[in-house]
Amino acid sequence: MLLISNRRCQVPRVVVVGAGFAGLAAARALRRSGMAVTLVDRHVYSTFQPLLYQVATGGLNPGDVAYPVRAYATQHRAGFRRGAVVRVDTAARQVVLADGGRVSYDYLILAGGVTTTHFGVPGAAQHTFAVYTRGDAIAVRDALMDRLETVAESPDRRLDLVVVGGGPTGVETAGALAELCDTGIRAAFPEIARDRVRVLLVERGEDVLSGFHPSLRRYAVRQLRHRGVQVRLGATVAAVEADRLCMADGTTVPAELTVWAAGVAAADQVRDWGLPQGAGGRILVGPDLRVLGEDRVFAAGDLAFDPQAPMPQLAPPAIQMGAHAAGQIERLAAGLGTKQFRYRDKGNAATIGRSAAVIELPGLVRLTGPIAWLGWVGLHVVMLLGARNRLSTLLNLAWRYLSRPYGRNLIVGDSPSRLPIQEAA
Amino acid sequence: MLLISNRRCQVPRVVVVGAGFAGLAAARALRRSGMAVTLVDRHVYSTFQPLLYQVATGGLNPGDVAYPVRAYATQHRAGFRRGAVVRVDTAARQVVLADGGRVSYDYLILAGGVTTTHFGVPGAAQHTFAVYTRGDAIAVRDALMDRLETVAESPDRRLDLVVVGGGPTGVETAGALAELCDTGIRAAFPEIARDRVRVLLVERGEDVLSGFHPSLRRYAVRQLRHRGVQVRLGATVAAVEADRLCMADGTTVPAELTVWAAGVAAADQVRDWGLPQGAGGRILVGPDLRVLGEDRVFAAGDLAFDPQAPMPQLAPPAIQMGAHAAGQIERLAAGLGTKQFRYRDKGNAATIGRSAAVIELPGLVRLTGPIAWLGWVGLHVVMLLGARNRLSTLLNLAWRYLSRPYGRNLIVGDSPSRLPIQEAA
Repeated sequence: MLLISNRRCQVPRVVVVGAGFAGLAAARALRRSGMAVTLVDRHVYSTFQPLLYQVATGGLNPGDVAYPVRAYATQHRAGFRRGAVVRVDTAARQVVLADGGRVSYDYLILAGGVTTTHFGVPGAAQHTFAVYTRGDAIAVRDALMDRLETVAESPDRRLDLVVVGGGPTGVETAGALAELCDTGIRAAFPEIARDRVRVLLVERGEDVLSGFHPSLRRYAVRQLRHRGVQVRLGATVAAVEADRLCMADGTTVPAELTVWAAGVAAADQVRDWGLPQGAGGRILVGPDLRVLGEDRVFAAGDLAFDPQAPMPQLAPPAIQMGAHAAGQIERLAAGLGTKQFRYRDKGNAATIGRSAAVIELPGLVRLTGPIAWLGWVGLHVVMLLGARNRLSTLLNLAWRYLSRPYGRNLIVGDSPSRLPIQEAA
Repeated sequence: MLLISNRRCQVPRVVVVGAGFAGLAAARALRRSGMAVTLVDRHVYSTFQPLLYQVATGGLNPGDVAYPVRAYATQHRAGFRRGAVVRVDTAARQVVLADGGRVSYDYLILAGGVTTTHFGVPGAAQHTFAVYTRGDAIAVRDALMDRLETVAESPDRRLDLVVVGGGPTGVETAGALAELCDTGIRAAFPEIARDRVRVLLVERGEDVLSGFHPSLRRYAVRQLRHRGVQVRLGATVAAVEADRLCMADGTTVPAELTVWAAGVAAADQVRDWGLPQGAGGRILVGPDLRVLGEDRVFAAGDLAFDPQAPMPQLAPPAIQMGAHAAGQIERLAAGLGTKQFRYRDKGNAATIGRSAAVIELPGLVRLTGPIAWLGWVGLHVVMLLGARNRLSTLLNLAWRYLSRPYGRNLIVGDSPSRLPIQEAA
């Protein structure tokens, strides 16, 4: 008995904070390690962020892009603890949670991701929506439906939908909004003439999709404009008011609904964790992904920042970083030294709308148009966690793109307007 | 031009308030009438209420049981106006909405349904959940997941889930909760021993499913008990506190989460409509479903009450009443008199859980067990609006019942607990 008890105590405890791409990859990599792995997340579900813009525009159910963390954990022989991290007690080797609980670790992986940042632009936090969390996306969807109903009730009103930021999220959201106007609104809102709804994409730089090859960037702008999106490049937002954007050049842009897709940074709470932070509040790591100054604490995914080798904040690096951190923990537990993280570029993809996407693969392979779009659909559906989610998402995406007019089958929620009889969303 | 304009003015305007079973049936019945039909609802979606308990227990997406009213309206040549009715101005023939708008009618059908009533039981409104609206069901689901996480974190805590009311909603909810405990919790919450979670069904009467034949009622109680539900009959709730029920016999029952499925009544706001009300605040109608004292105003569905011929508050009577009211409007517009509403009983069904349901058909046909259950599944999936919803629901139900352990694929949402980093559900 004593021997068994001793042995059980010697199993290293690995705590993984954050059930996103990096955290889940770490748990998966450790499933046969024999270590006691615990996933910690403030939500009971993991969100497939790349498709949140579809939830925001009524094409997918929130449940299609969310998967219970417990399901993933039990499948991979890990435990789950719901909780928000307020501090990392490196001396006691414990993660301190908001509910007062403490989770002890021998090795820790911090993979809690980042959140929307407004770069201090006045009014942006109050008057814009993000599409970075499941709750964000539901809020955009419900506000969008609410604005459309209001416009339908007032024949003289216009609706200006604005997306700030020309990265993949901004481009995909603007493209989906344009599709909504072109087919969905036409079908479901006969009261609203097409020219009463405008979609505008505002980007500070001289191009959208800056991570892609210039030819793909030009293709994306052409496709957006072809689909009715007004694209303003080199335009910086100076302030946001309730119904308009004030630009740095002194002009104003009407905006009844603004999606802020301009940037991400670590959550403010990370400041209290007591760990070194770099650009955007992200946690500073060395080449092996260990947090600077720490032996047993790793950071992975969007939250990790190595100034010598900054990574794009996308799913593929996050997955590779999570798996790398897990592998280094196995090495440390075996008494070996850590290895340097090396990113293997698997390519990058973004979609503009039906039959239009860009894909960039290593070796100068660049795809656009319907083939790239089909590749994008397949890639995202296969990457989705869980067979049920895959099937359900495929069904809903197929419905969105194969049925005409698709607006008839929008997934709609509660209107956030103040009606006298009202229940929770 | 003048002639056309005159003709257009002569098209009777029919306003249908409420996009539930009765309202949608009315709109469908009027689609070839040539009349100008407008559906009015406070939500932009129609909810398939019979499956809300599945949303509440994580088996279906909220979007699986909701369908955009505009989609239905445009398919049936009707218009849609979002709004909550605050008054019916019968003199001006206008429905007054909460946003100040007025919708003019020549004929009006009030089919806004009913809502949960707590019969004045102290604490019931504050401390219990309903499963009568989409928002209700989401709230139950999120609270349930939250309670389970809390119990998982505290090895010495128990969880008492209580359902008040033994009608179809109560029986179906209790059965689904028992299934969740038996398979879902076992799979996803290895920390929680089975005997730490209890499901209790409390019913005031001497039997559950009082609308069914006594042999079916006994079958339902047997099946519930077989599935681990404690059934307390002849038990009246006197008051509800945060964590327990106080019964009329002086005993108390621990209850961390209580679903109130004990009764429905017209919403309080209906009092302001200025129309005659009967039992449960429902609007009094004559045998032709016209509101008492009104020539052009009908009521249909749960909201309508004819003391001479009270109807069960179920989908089949609501659908038939909606269609009947529509037919009478066509007769009135053609200068004919109205006909009396006669309910054609098509039978009744309720499910207890996997492979267990009761079906009662006219002609003394009574079914129980797996065949009844398959009939119930088929009936509900076919009745669901929209091919996309049907497919998606079938997929999710199949997953729930064909995969073991199904808990791994629960549809989960946000925890309503107060965590420091929190976003909207």
